[in-house]
Amino acid sequence: LKVFSLNSNPDLAKEIAEHIGINLGKCSVTSFSDGEIQINIEESIRGCDVYVIQSTCDPVNKHMMELLIMIDALKRASAKTINVVLPYYGYARQDRKARAREPITAKLVANLLETAGATRVITLDLHASQIQGFFDIPVDQLLGVPILSDYFLSKGLEDIVIVSPDHGGVTRARKMADRLKAPIAIIDKRRPKPNVAEVMNIIGHIEGKTAIIIDDIIDTAGTITLAANALIESGAKKVYACCTHPVLSGPAIERIENSSISELVVTNTIPLPEAKQIEKITNLSVAPLLGEAI
Amino acid sequence: LKVFSLNSNPDLAKEIAEHIGINLGKCSVTSFSDGEIQINIEESIRGCDVYVIQSTCDPVNKHMMELLIMIDALKRASAKTINVVLPYYGYARQDRKARAREPITAKLVANLLETAGATRVITLDLHASQIQGFFDIPVDQLLGVPILSDYFLSKGLEDIVIVSPDHGGVTRARKMADRLKAPIAIIDKRRPKPNVAEVMNIIGHIEGKTAIIIDDIIDTAGTITLAANALIESGAKKVYACCTHPVLSGPAIERIENSSISELVVTNTIPLPEAKQIEKITNLSVAPLLGEAI
Ligand SMILES: Nc1ncnc2c1ncn2[C@@H]1O[C@H](COP(=O)(O)O)[C@@H](O)[C@H]1O
Ligand SMILES: Nc1ncnc2c1ncn2[C@@H]1O[C@H](COP(=O)(O)O)[C@@H](O)[C@H]1O
Repeated sequence: LKVFSLNSNPDLAKEIAEHIGINLGKCSVTSFSDGEIQINIEESIRGCDVYVIQSTCDPVNKHMMELLIMIDALKRASAKTINVVLPYYGYARQDRKARAREPITAKLVANLLETAGATRVITLDLHASQIQGFFDIPVDQLLGVPILSDYFLSKGLEDIVIVSPDHGGVTRARKMADRLKAPIAIIDKRRPKPNVAEVMNIIGHIEGKTAIIIDDIIDTAGTITLAANALIESGAKKVYACCTHPVLSGPAIERIENSSISELVVTNTIPLPEAKQIEKITNLSVAPLLGEAI
Repeated sequence: LKVFSLNSNPDLAKEIAEHIGINLGKCSVTSFSDGEIQINIEESIRGCDVYVIQSTCDPVNKHMMELLIMIDALKRASAKTINVVLPYYGYARQDRKARAREPITAKLVANLLETAGATRVITLDLHASQIQGFFDIPVDQLLGVPILSDYFLSKGLEDIVIVSPDHGGVTRARKMADRLKAPIAIIDKRRPKPNVAEVMNIIGHIEGKTAIIIDDIIDTAGTITLAANALIESGAKKVYACCTHPVLSGPAIERIENSSISELVVTNTIPLPEAKQIEKITNLSVAPLLGEAI
């Protein structure tokens, strides 16, 4: 058993290795002067079960190519199995043709990983579970809900309601609600007329309650902060938010700081840049979960 | 017939389209807030022979993913054939395992292009011709030598010698020498002892002659500027240099400016950044050549 880390999430990789009780495999992953990736595996892996840890987060294209090139190198060095640990699966939102002549990049990524030589994938909270079916190799999907739920349980909150920010996230909210023995509510976004701002209609009882909004990915944080404000306006006492994958691009941090969200709970599938270690964010580790799976 | 340009080399793509006498296909190739590439093809290409023009130059990983995602989109939009025009083939120098446990990224790139759906590749001066054999689809390799040779012929230089900067480039130098009816010389780099600087030993007569060094890629320009200086020291009257692919990374421009090279002739397979439009560099177009091939 060998575990290698690439450049996207070295802290998480270190934690996972500690959890398993081994050292990370030696390899150098750098760039030539012209930006081409140079990989050198510095210990024999012949006949080994190899795990490579990489989140394909921003810069996604570089992290993707690093991963593909590493898989190629492992394959040519006669690894027995090549297990790709993708805490965050980039391009997962491009999972279907929403318009004519669009790519389905989530499927392309699956094909590229298999072509390079991956023999198994371990990931967390795919944006759409259908992505498992894009692969012809085993895909283990772990869930962030238990980790997020345990954290909220430990806070001992009372009279809570779990809120899904859209219809697609209801199953996830349901799972969390079961663990917290709470009811659910759903935000029903509607655009009354074209070119008129969306209306956030809340389905379910939230008045006087502590709301916990759960999503898989928080990217620019537009939806989640509007939802939080709508909840407060409709009488919620306090609003928490949580997600597995803190993409937090563009205006996300500023929006969260200026929103009605009192605490945002995320996991470390994507590292928070130093500047983003703001007070409102609590960061939970998926290392034990991934360590168990390996 | 439809020709699309991605983001690496829009000027060359425009020139190629003009040469063929058509408009470039409409598509938008942008990025989402988190850096993921978003492609939308804005005209029907069903049943068409489609050409996509992209050099996988710096930022190579982004340009590579753009190309793969575009191919995926074209495939799903029912293109009849997908012809990838790669004026510059990035990662071509990682074409063999020089050390244990290295990737062979040039082969990986071939596999990725085929997996995405490319049906044919048109490229210029592969770093190693063997790369053609990495593909199971047709690969047309065009040569920069005729363009570079014609330019030097038009200068009416006399008493010239064509110089290969290493043993690997002799065939290319031979081709140019035939066109210019000139003899060749070869630079024979040797390291007399470990940790001692390389010695540039010149095989062939260069005294009093005008030397033209030819290479496929000039990257950091270390080899070529040392070679030029060695040629002058050994009695060459004047030194020109030329290559097909001006990668020109890191210290390249500074080195060329401070070297004995009086003129560097390159082609536009890779765009020269504004800042690099220095006086010593002459830029020739491969658009007619690629236009003919399409
Ligand atoms: N990286 C991205 N950032 C923002 N939007 C995206 C991204 N990737 C895909 N999308 C869009 O998000 C939508 C899919 O989200 P969803 O409906 O939640 O599955 C599609 O319309 C995509 O065009
Ligand atoms: N992008 C790059 N920049 C610099 N050197 C490279 C690059 N890619 C591969 N190489 C190295 O260049 C050598 C191959 O060059 P060559 O011997 O001219 O075919 C190999 O030792 C590679 O490790």
